Amino acid sequence: METQSVRPILIQVDQCDNVAIIANEEGLEQGTMLSNGIFLQETIPMGHKVTLADLAQGDAIRRYNQVIGYASEALPAGSWVHQFRVELPKAPQLDELVYDDHPPQTLSPLEGYYFDGYRNPDGSVGTKNLLAVTTTVHCVAGVVDYIVERIEKQLLPHYPNVDGVVALNHLYGCGVAINAPAAVVPIRTLHNLAKNPNFGSEVLVVGLGCEKLQPELLLNAEHEPIAIPKQQIIMLQDEKHHGFQSMVNEVLTQANVLLGRLNQRSRERCPVSNLVVGMQCGGSDAFSGVTANPAVGYASDLLVRCGATVMFSEVTEVRDAIHLLVPRAANAKVASDLIAQMRWYDNYLAAGQTDRSANPSPGNKKGGLANVVEKALGSIAKSGTSAIVEVIAAGERPQRKGLIFAATPASDFVCGTQQLASGITLQVFTTGRGTPYGLKAIPVIKMATNSALAHRWDDLIDMNAGTIAEGLNSIEQIGQQLFEMILAVASGRHQTWAERWGLYNQLSVFNPAPIT
Amino acid sequence: METQSVRPILIQVDQCDNVAIIANEEGLEQGTMLSNGIFLQETIPMGHKVTLADLAQGDAIRRYNQVIGYASEALPAGSWVHQFRVELPKAPQLDELVYDDHPPQTLSPLEGYYFDGYRNPDGSVGTKNLLAVTTTVHCVAGVVDYIVERIEKQLLPHYPNVDGVVALNHLYGCGVAINAPAAVVPIRTLHNLAKNPNFGSEVLVVGLGCEKLQPELLLNAEHEPIAIPKQQIIMLQDEKHHGFQSMVNEVLTQANVLLGRLNQRSRERCPVSNLVVGMQCGGSDAFSGVTANPAVGYASDLLVRCGATVMFSEVTEVRDAIHLLVPRAANAKVASDLIAQMRWYDNYLAAGQTDRSANPSPGNKKGGLANVVEKALGSIAKSGTSAIVEVIAAGERPQRKGLIFAATPASDFVCGTQQLASGITLQVFTTGRGTPYGLKAIPVIKMATNSALAHRWDDLIDMNAGTIAEGLNSIEQIGQQLFEMILAVASGRHQTWAERWGLYNQLSVFNPAPIT
Ligand SMILES: [Ca+2]
Ligand SMILES: [Ca+2]
Ligand SMILES: [Ca+2]
Ligand SMILES: [Ca+2]
Ligand SMILES: [Ca+2]
Repeated sequence: METQSVRPILIQVDQCDNVAIIANEEGLEQGTMLSNGIFLQETIPMGHKVTLADLAQGDAIRRYNQVIGYASEALPAGSWVHQFRVELPKAPQLDELVYDDHPPQTLSPLEGYYFDGYRNPDGSVGTKNLLAVTTTVHCVAGVVDYIVERIEKQLLPHYPNVDGVVALNHLYGCGVAINAPAAVVPIRTLHNLAKNPNFGSEVLVVGLGCEKLQPELLLNAEHEPIAIPKQQIIMLQDEKHHGFQSMVNEVLTQANVLLGRLNQRSRERCPVSNLVVGMQCGGSDAFSGVTANPAVGYASDLLVRCGATVMFSEVTEVRDAIHLLVPRAANAKVASDLIAQMRWYDNYLAAGQTDRSANPSPGNKKGGLANVVEKALGSIAKSGTSAIVEVIAAGERPQRKGLIFAATPASDFVCGTQQLASGITLQVFTTGRGTPYGLKAIPVIKMATNSALAHRWDDLIDMNAGTIAEGLNSIEQIGQQLFEMILAVASGRHQTWAERWGLYNQLSVFNPAPIT
Repeated sequence: METQSVRPILIQVDQCDNVAIIANEEGLEQGTMLSNGIFLQETIPMGHKVTLADLAQGDAIRRYNQVIGYASEALPAGSWVHQFRVELPKAPQLDELVYDDHPPQTLSPLEGYYFDGYRNPDGSVGTKNLLAVTTTVHCVAGVVDYIVERIEKQLLPHYPNVDGVVALNHLYGCGVAINAPAAVVPIRTLHNLAKNPNFGSEVLVVGLGCEKLQPELLLNAEHEPIAIPKQQIIMLQDEKHHGFQSMVNEVLTQANVLLGRLNQRSRERCPVSNLVVGMQCGGSDAFSGVTANPAVGYASDLLVRCGATVMFSEVTEVRDAIHLLVPRAANAKVASDLIAQMRWYDNYLAAGQTDRSANPSPGNKKGGLANVVEKALGSIAKSGTSAIVEVIAAGERPQRKGLIFAATPASDFVCGTQQLASGITLQVFTTGRGTPYGLKAIPVIKMATNSALAHRWDDLIDMNAGTIAEGLNSIEQIGQQLFEMILAVASGRHQTWAERWGLYNQLSVFNPAPIT
């Protein structure tokens, strides 16, 4: 045997696991001896799994002390456990889940943490002071884009206390089956988007006139209607408009009035209980579940202890770990709501003749994730350890503070849009493969799951949790740093990379109903 | 009776019709005497229908010499036939449609018409000379938007022969059930979008790396792969990229090369047979089917006679007139393809627990359209009188020239995107209520169905067909003018209003499959 120049780094999450992941950035070569005396049967890339014992065909493969699948062939100790060697287990049967009413104990309260936010008339608090222009229908998007550019160039310089202007453009509003049962989702989403706390309870509505989603429907879709003066609703087909410039001028005039009001506002010291933070992962790898996501979970617990609202989401990515979430439900209603959301999605996928195996993506697999079970176990780590106090459907707003399951698709841009509608004012986004994700309405803190990405994308990634895998930091240390960065970003004291470059996704409203 | 100051203008499409529409801009008041001696029972707004004979409850209401519905109450001559007085008839039963193999005779060829276009290596001809940046996944949209702005400001001024740069951003590519049967639609659409003739057979691909829609899939999705040099595919997760500016620089470098090549091109005289024109209506009213749409139909016949390709679409809007389209199929295959597309959509709507009555929109109804049957009869007028030579599914490219039914949703922005993918290089868009619709990749000629709209929106509407209702022009005259404007716009000699203001919709790719 040649001398080993590389010290093997293995991450075994639980002592009962029979696989571990290789943390070395270059992977490990065939023949490498691990600290437990096992020799690698083959070369294994970073983030991928190695067997720690001899597995026979059909044996359970355990990670996170959970069965992530079954060996599809014999895998002697030191084998590479790639996706084609792992048979997908059945999803937890929803009918068999029982709630035993022993939720986690309430975490000890944490006091004395504050951030500087914008207080709104409705009691919510924003992390930014933005003018929102919402729309009833995509037909007006071109006009709104044109006007937003004019607002940015001509008006904003006169209102230094306003952070920007956001066009809530979307692909809904007409040419859609607005009476289909599932249409409630996009309509509620658009309604609640306009209510996001970062818009200061102000909003300008631009509509066309003949669309299915009439302004009355958009504004009154939910229990608490959006009450705005009539002049803040501008309809392009209104007979008073003679030509395009007339439309532009009316919107600019109204924008000026709102900007004047928004400009009067300033940041005030607010308790952290006024924060609403969304957690998401995207472009995950095998490190997500051992570095960034647990660190996010630690920060999530800190936020919950401060009385803040924390949302986690991504139904298809928690589906295979639902048996671990149901026991964390604060009460039987929450447990049954959790199961109902899983069932809704099972049916939705079945109607499209597909299933949960559609996730993970090729990049997830390249990053070492064998299947959706392994992905789910890593994904739920973002939720920390506290009780789940409420479940909300896509685009709903929570009634409670604490840890909320906001049922959204896992798609990064859809989850982002839906959490925005549910009222988040900041999002934490973990990524192993890397994505330049950003939202214009709120700051997004991007955290790398591995140092290689954090170093390569040093002007896109805001925090590195990869040092956890290298043994340089504990989960608690990175979690604490993230908590502090959340307060700094929410206070406007620290800018995220997406904000600095102005990198923003478009809104992507979840519409499970047909279009016409 | 007081003296009548207003001369009543009625439009009765067919002499067998028992209703006519009121063409007077202010509508007509109760008591007005029509030229046939009938007095109005009530005041009727412009575009709405009046009964020309006494109808009993249950009597068929006829327009276009077709049954558009049944009287839901007794309607004496002179009554207002609004939506609540019309019972929706059953849709034509698809199983009962029989093709009798007597398609319309081939129209006489028309020669000697040309336009100045950009000839492509693949034989197609563009109406513009654009650089396209396509994307595999929405995750890269923020980066692409950033770069396109840089290209517009820094590079384009050096390439005077290039008309612009288009980012083919979309909300697909990941977080989607890419193996669901219906996923073929969005994947094919994105593939064919990149092939639009206005991009000169050149395209730059920006991808992330971990997405489900990998570049290989995007480029090879259809029979004729998009063959581009490897360096035109830029993946943000590529390990060679150290930071954001490295990504930006690589795209700018490649853009520069492509712009250099595109800048060598110039317009050449091409026969009209090289044109591919899409027809669409949006924000329709009761005039659509008697002014603009028949004029479009006339222009459509002229284009077909020149050997051009003409597409009409909007499945839910032709569904109720399918019995009039099947006899126009050029052969039995076309007839059965037409019926198959209707059936697909019936099933799609049923799966979403809705049906064809989801169309028309409130604005359509306000404009006088009682239901989807009446809308359909007006909508198919855009197709003219020629034989339908081919039916293509959403996002497919036709194999034949002549009149094509391109099966797309009726939604304006989705139909636009799908027709773009099917290769149109110009679109004609008729509207009665008015919409500022536009596409960045191709010119869109907007035609008003009524003069009121054309006058009010004189800097958004390119042509007025309302003079047909006023008796000032014939359908043939307006159709001929439209044909001439099509050639002028396709040649770059005339700019549409959307081009002048830069008003463009985002792309809205049809995805009937679930998202995850
Ligand atoms: Ca995720
Ligand atoms: Ca993901
Ligand atoms: Ca995600
Ligand atoms: Ca239409
Ligand atoms: Ca349409």
